[in-house]
Amino acid sequence: MAHLTASVEYGLHCLLTLVDAGPAPRSGKDLALFQGISPTFAAKTLAKLEKAGIVRAAEGVRGGYLLARSPDTITVLAIVDAIEGRKPLFECQEIRTRCPLFGAEPPAWASRGVCSIHAVMLKAEKAMRGALASETLADIAGQLERKAPAEFGADTKTWFDQRIAARRPRRSNPSKALAT
Amino acid sequence: MAHLTASVEYGLHCLLTLVDAGPAPRSGKDLALFQGISPTFAAKTLAKLEKAGIVRAAEGVRGGYLLARSPDTITVLAIVDAIEGRKPLFECQEIRTRCPLFGAEPPAWASRGVCSIHAVMLKAEKAMRGALASETLADIAGQLERKAPAEFGADTKTWFDQRIAARRPRRSNPSKALAT
Repeated sequence: MAHLTASVEYGLHCLLTLVDAGPAPRSGKDLALFQGISPTFAAKTLAKLEKAGIVRAAEGVRGGYLLARSPDTITVLAIVDAIEGRKPLFECQEIRTRCPLFGAEPPAWASRGVCSIHAVMLKAEKAMRGALASETLADIAGQLERKAPAEFGADTKTWFDQRIAARRPRRSNPSKALAT
Repeated sequence: MAHLTASVEYGLHCLLTLVDAGPAPRSGKDLALFQGISPTFAAKTLAKLEKAGIVRAAEGVRGGYLLARSPDTITVLAIVDAIEGRKPLFECQEIRTRCPLFGAEPPAWASRGVCSIHAVMLKAEKAMRGALASETLADIAGQLERKAPAEFGADTKTWFDQRIAARRPRRSNPSKALAT
């Protein structure tokens, strides 16, 4: 198992697909289908991204999700934190104060400053978060654009447009609708 | 919850206590008592560190654990990997190949090179592992030495020596022993 869950991967792929969506919202279900991932899982992940202000939801039959801000302002770190929560690399339980030599009251030196073990972990965490903060959604989208053939963007747009066009408004009262 | 488990913290504290142990092995039980941690948890962690060649076990009534090599050759990364396993930051499921536009056979460009999302994660993982690899057990022990008063080392040695001296050989046949 990896440190980051599959939700991060799903969320990043959904966001990548929203970069070129233009003004037409894409639904969670369509985004999931386009990535070959579970719609329920995608819905949960998109809800977290909405809460973090990374995507915004548009209601209605043509509703769905749009990026809430420009992809060059959305770092991979912001996406990871939105989905996983601000999870530390290491949780220090201040074991250094539990030594039986100290008795009931640990001396001041034992808890002065950050525990030396914790300090190493904080340095490693900073390095990891720095690397994630240095890349944006726009950077990844740019790489995909350079890799994919020119028609991929247009084909993607057509696929989503067809999905949107095929949607029917939900009837608000099914029993009444059936009676008419 | 943190990315690294409490076992890493326990293991690191146990190893720190072995740095100045000299030639006298310290038992898992004594090491656990000295840190105020669970002896069962410490035993499991020390077994992993032994398997990774970081500590070695000495048998017998005066038995226990010793560092298997010099603390300046034991990186924090080696300790983390020994305890947690070589856990990646991110597991790529190659979602990029699942797009419904590709049909049954994804085109070569879709899986060429490393997925751009995975590449960002690999960069972050490298930064984190690099930071953990740049610090050794000797570095942390040095910081503790500079922080602790001069008598702490001697008091620690006395505490472990007394624990070792108080040990009694286990009787191999308790019922026979009771009869004599």
